[in-house]
Amino acid sequence: MIRHTVTFRLKHPTGSAAETDFLKAACTLTSIPGVRKFECLRQTSPKSNFTFGLSMEFDDAAAYAAYSAHPEHDAFVQQRWIPEVLEFLELDYEVIG
Amino acid sequence: MIRHTVTFRLKHPTGSAAETDFLKAACTLTSIPGVRKFECLRQTSPKSNFTFGLSMEFDDAAAYAAYSAHPEHDAFVQQRWIPEVLEFLELDYEVIG
Repeated sequence: MIRHTVTFRLKHPTGSAAETDFLKAACTLTSIPGVRKFECLRQTSPKSNFTFGLSMEFDDAAAYAAYSAHPEHDAFVQQRWIPEVLEFLELDYEVIG
Repeated sequence: MIRHTVTFRLKHPTGSAAETDFLKAACTLTSIPGVRKFECLRQTSPKSNFTFGLSMEFDDAAAYAAYSAHPEHDAFVQQRWIPEVLEFLELDYEVIG
């Protein structure tokens, strides 16, 4: 199992309609084949400037690669992520204990 | 529910006995009251220099605060975390969708 996560901060003001619309669009990624346990998250630690997160799981590297290459994922990255995200960090995890 | 996560990189060489010993010590945090779904994680994204992660969940902010203030947590931070961790980032999440 691979848990793919990304934490990010938007260009939009907190609580804005644009923020809500972005999160709604991000949630459509859950329908891409291979995505398991999709979660849209709010980042709450005051020790970080990131404000949101996404988390999803894949059965294996092949499923993760298929997601990354999927046209719906690519369209989201090009049309929403790149124009609207100010900064982000991707972290992928495997459970070891 | 609050999911407390931290991703980090150790001062120890990859695969070293010191690395294994640190991870073993980190896993003892799971016994602190209030900790749920404790996971020791390997960070695998080549887009980040962090190599490990810990994830745990708390029922609420009071349980999280009790964990942070617990003597076992404090001892781990002072005796292991500060001396052995090179860099880290804490991210806390609440599920919003």
